[in-house]
Amino acid sequence: MNIERNIKTIIVKKPLKLDCGKTIENFPIAFETYGDLNLKKDNAILVFHALTGDQFVTGINPITKKEGWWSYAVGPGKAIDTNKYFVICSNVIGGCMGSYGPSHINDKTKKIFGTDFPVITINDMVNAQYNLLEYFGIKKLFSVTGGSMGGMQVLQFISNFPNKSKTVIPIATTSSHSAQNIAFNELGRQAITADNNWRDGTYNSNNTNPSKGLAVARMAAHITYLSKKGLQEKFGRKLQEREDLKFGFDADFQIESYLRYQGSVFVDRFDANSYLYITRAMDYFDLAKQFKGNLSDAFKETKAKFFIISFTSDWLYPTQENKDIVIALNSIGADVGFVEIESDKGHDSFLLDVPDFLNALKNFLNKSYLEN
Amino acid sequence: MNIERNIKTIIVKKPLKLDCGKTIENFPIAFETYGDLNLKKDNAILVFHALTGDQFVTGINPITKKEGWWSYAVGPGKAIDTNKYFVICSNVIGGCMGSYGPSHINDKTKKIFGTDFPVITINDMVNAQYNLLEYFGIKKLFSVTGGSMGGMQVLQFISNFPNKSKTVIPIATTSSHSAQNIAFNELGRQAITADNNWRDGTYNSNNTNPSKGLAVARMAAHITYLSKKGLQEKFGRKLQEREDLKFGFDADFQIESYLRYQGSVFVDRFDANSYLYITRAMDYFDLAKQFKGNLSDAFKETKAKFFIISFTSDWLYPTQENKDIVIALNSIGADVGFVEIESDKGHDSFLLDVPDFLNALKNFLNKSYLEN
Repeated sequence: MNIERNIKTIIVKKPLKLDCGKTIENFPIAFETYGDLNLKKDNAILVFHALTGDQFVTGINPITKKEGWWSYAVGPGKAIDTNKYFVICSNVIGGCMGSYGPSHINDKTKKIFGTDFPVITINDMVNAQYNLLEYFGIKKLFSVTGGSMGGMQVLQFISNFPNKSKTVIPIATTSSHSAQNIAFNELGRQAITADNNWRDGTYNSNNTNPSKGLAVARMAAHITYLSKKGLQEKFGRKLQEREDLKFGFDADFQIESYLRYQGSVFVDRFDANSYLYITRAMDYFDLAKQFKGNLSDAFKETKAKFFIISFTSDWLYPTQENKDIVIALNSIGADVGFVEIESDKGHDSFLLDVPDFLNALKNFLNKSYLEN
Repeated sequence: MNIERNIKTIIVKKPLKLDCGKTIENFPIAFETYGDLNLKKDNAILVFHALTGDQFVTGINPITKKEGWWSYAVGPGKAIDTNKYFVICSNVIGGCMGSYGPSHINDKTKKIFGTDFPVITINDMVNAQYNLLEYFGIKKLFSVTGGSMGGMQVLQFISNFPNKSKTVIPIATTSSHSAQNIAFNELGRQAITADNNWRDGTYNSNNTNPSKGLAVARMAAHITYLSKKGLQEKFGRKLQEREDLKFGFDADFQIESYLRYQGSVFVDRFDANSYLYITRAMDYFDLAKQFKGNLSDAFKETKAKFFIISFTSDWLYPTQENKDIVIALNSIGADVGFVEIESDKGHDSFLLDVPDFLNALKNFLNKSYLEN
């Protein structure tokens, strides 16, 4: 285990064959843990992060100096109680927080990969992360969970490793990326590659950065994370530090200023090529297709207990897409619970202080833990 | 009347004071007409175009050589029957199809305006177009209609000129741009201004064109014009001329290819600065605010007959926002009809072959015409 710049990593020595056909080996996986692994090693929860997340789930992220992305849900006494559970989270491969990705050096060329990095899939991400179980000597996880792309990894994980988790909690996710989801991701990719500074992905070697394009991609995505109603209630037509419209192109409205801010802070912490790779992995995700169109077959080998959570105002991964997973599980008599949480906060609900959600998550985990 | 490159224009000599405080005069308004004005001059319908529309409503657009944007609705025997009605449509000021806009020469500096063009509003657009009534000697229009931003102009027109139209048909629109609408427009503007070739709006003088940024703006907007369900049914996860995923960043999915195409054809016909100005006008639109928050007051002077049309799958200007207009009209006892059309085609429904919509439009017009 190396520790460099607050990032813990394992180097995976054994070769991993990727879906694209290429094989990677001796590659780093960066991870973080919270709480303590008990003696029986049966209290571990593997958390999977979403598109722009990382391994720093809770507390202060040592790189960005901001709160971890799931601070509302994970921590001492919280829904995922780190006094009780051992939480592991790793940066996905393709990412930019220490795990093997496009900003790493290509051993063969000694240059930064850029778009020479292999296109990876959700399946590849999950197979890479499986190495952490071996590293910690965990035979079976207590739970796997995550929202959005994290939820996709949850579904893929239990499909690949049906006996490796007692419980399974996919949140605000889908078993197959829809045309609209692909469209929004493609929009983000086009914004990045339209930036002259992207330079066919070689910006790192050229000391440039497609930050304008990446900011636009982030703004587009950010709109999809919030609900129309939530935006209206929070921002409406409120003006940004002015009495009236200015008849210009500065940010007159608070929503404009907010979006610009979201774009500008994002580029400081995220790599444009990683954005391309990770959105591509999401778009490629189609679990049913892996089982000749029968989603139920993805889960037929597992005895795990499922709990699926969706949010009323999530229009990116709406309740119906979450229900499709429930239906597939029900049709094979799996142990599955489902709750749709009332929230105006859109897709982002899973990251926010939504008490009904946090309580549901906490209660499911605690009840399942008592059955341990 | 000048005719240059198939574009008919009037030059408005008298000064028009804009909402921003500036005054314009001797400015061109480009327009097109279809059908014949009858002797009583009581069969004219003023059609207002949407964000990226122009005066070429139906038939082949002489500039783009493609079908006019409302060819399904307007023409001989169609809902807006040009055998019966005299249809007038003009390019909005701020636009790029002949009416006064940012690509015109600033008389004072002898340079292309760019972002020196005054910021215009929906109110300014409507006041400019009113000159066409005087030009044609029309005392009262038979109808004013349009969808999306066209619908905003419809509402503003009847508010400004309560006795100047017998009927009023706002379609798929809103009386006030929502935070989500502003957010998507701001995204488009950011995409344009992020393009190095935009050069603070002086690209015309520099022989460059921010076509990549404008294409991204168009892609973003295009996604909002279609419904999630419609996209799923039309594209789903269908692949673009390939047997399987290619594990690269080319367009694997048809939806990606479609969006790229929409972006690329748009930049050939639209001006980036006009996109900035027109989206700004939409964002500034808040009819209730003009009447101290009471939308009903916008309509209290008119005796016109209203017919408001919305579409079930339109999430950009959803039925509720159209209903808010109906409610405001009902509360002052106005003559108002309303229909919500079942369609999976999203906001674009008003431009497409949606028979229930076209029939409703036709029947309302014909019935009202018989009462003439």
